[in-house]
Amino acid sequence: MLVNQTLPDAVTIIEVGPRDGLQNEKHVSTRAKIELINALSTTGLKHIEAGAFVSPKWVPQMADSARVFDSIKRASGVAYPALTPNLKGFEDAITAKADQVAIFTSASEGFCRHNINCSIDESIDRFAPVMEAASDSDIAVRAYLSCVIDCPFDGPTHPSQVARIAKRLFELGCYEISLGDTIGTGTPAKVSAMLEAVMTEVPISNLAVHFHDTWGQALANIYQALLMGISVIDSSVAGLGGCPYAPGAAGNVATEDVLYLCQGLGISTGVDLNKVAQAGWTISDTLKRQPSSKVSLALRAHGLK
Amino acid sequence: MLVNQTLPDAVTIIEVGPRDGLQNEKHVSTRAKIELINALSTTGLKHIEAGAFVSPKWVPQMADSARVFDSIKRASGVAYPALTPNLKGFEDAITAKADQVAIFTSASEGFCRHNINCSIDESIDRFAPVMEAASDSDIAVRAYLSCVIDCPFDGPTHPSQVARIAKRLFELGCYEISLGDTIGTGTPAKVSAMLEAVMTEVPISNLAVHFHDTWGQALANIYQALLMGISVIDSSVAGLGGCPYAPGAAGNVATEDVLYLCQGLGISTGVDLNKVAQAGWTISDTLKRQPSSKVSLALRAHGLK
Repeated sequence: MLVNQTLPDAVTIIEVGPRDGLQNEKHVSTRAKIELINALSTTGLKHIEAGAFVSPKWVPQMADSARVFDSIKRASGVAYPALTPNLKGFEDAITAKADQVAIFTSASEGFCRHNINCSIDESIDRFAPVMEAASDSDIAVRAYLSCVIDCPFDGPTHPSQVARIAKRLFELGCYEISLGDTIGTGTPAKVSAMLEAVMTEVPISNLAVHFHDTWGQALANIYQALLMGISVIDSSVAGLGGCPYAPGAAGNVATEDVLYLCQGLGISTGVDLNKVAQAGWTISDTLKRQPSSKVSLALRAHGLK
Repeated sequence: MLVNQTLPDAVTIIEVGPRDGLQNEKHVSTRAKIELINALSTTGLKHIEAGAFVSPKWVPQMADSARVFDSIKRASGVAYPALTPNLKGFEDAITAKADQVAIFTSASEGFCRHNINCSIDESIDRFAPVMEAASDSDIAVRAYLSCVIDCPFDGPTHPSQVARIAKRLFELGCYEISLGDTIGTGTPAKVSAMLEAVMTEVPISNLAVHFHDTWGQALANIYQALLMGISVIDSSVAGLGGCPYAPGAAGNVATEDVLYLCQGLGISTGVDLNKVAQAGWTISDTLKRQPSSKVSLALRAHGLK
């Protein structure tokens, strides 16, 4: 097991709740989304993924992304990226003044075929015009790589396969590859093997981890990633986002829980945990449920308003 | 940070749900307790803490422990320990045919005074007659040491203080010291510092960790302990047991989540995760709520009956 033993001094949190979280929730009003993003904009978070420009036929929850981008109060120094699957989405994102865009593919053929209806190679070929247009517009492109541990259709993903696709995305010009344990089945040993393979192909400073907490392992896995020097973590306020492959089970790791872990490890994030928790309680109240974050519940039990 | 990098091959799970869990829940019927323990006895667990012989004035939830011990169907090779604060409790435990007993004190003076109304030194002095009687009866004594990270009254506990008290309990004859993060505020760096201090005074083979998941950090902390060579873990089926110091927040780490972590790390436990999860759903149904275990929820979502 590869352990660096030197934790990073600082970690960047990529808040994905308004996009990756809410696209897996029942419909939330445009107004509630805008209020959530505005609240998150006051917390110190520097990256808030605010929407997706995808076909509303496939993801109806994100059909109002243009209105969201148009109405949020943008904070200075905060980037508001958008998910864009193709050139049409990219153009819509630019029109909406998204600061960055993210493309997505999978490390497993089964998931890629099921999710975007093509092979991994085909999905990457489709990004070429997006990368070209982004380069022309001086827009940074991030890549989400899903199923880096297991695939709900194909089973375990080999670390060398993850490394191969991550390398292609990096060579394509993506500034950061977000490695997703999409169904949350990973444990630290598998995470370690996967990261070890990917780190031989892509510089660690261009890697992020994107872990789901479906099986309760996300913080242990993030801790393993931190021990290996990873310093960019995707997370979702209030743990927004269920697991589409296990309805009723947990989805994205909660930003609050990641912040508490980082604080305890002496890792700077620049983010105000209490403010994030308050934003999380507000959107959870809208969704008529408790935050899926033990830190949020503990803070509330200790008097968080 | 001290990381051994060699995970143990096998881990012993000490199931504390029927005692530490249920003593922090609303009252559960004697029959439900017996059924829980009987179900857990078929899972491969080798240590099931089945009750406490304490004053019913202080812990009314455990007032029926003698009846529980009398009625459970004991499985071959499974030990059923009981918590005993003093000689009276010890004698009751022996009468009930408890296989082992456990004593308890705190690493923080404030918690000790609040919980058992005496200083730490006084609490340890009180154990002397229990240790003597246990030795005469050839009964093994375990020690719970609480507040090894933080105390709800005194704040942070210094690792050297934990080491000092753990050493005294070990020298007193306790075969195992269970190190409790009672309010679950720990993160891996603090756990590492605490264990590093304790391991200089007590052999690692005589140490266990007992982590609460109030702030969602228990699995990350257990992973840190495993990386340092700890091979005995206390946990509670279905995460039974709230946090008395933060009502509404989580208590003991769930056995199911620990088992999943160990399985993923290739660590043998000898315990059947599905059977434990089934027992957890049954007692949770009795308590009219869901298990506090993401693994249990994910298993159910995947079809666990």
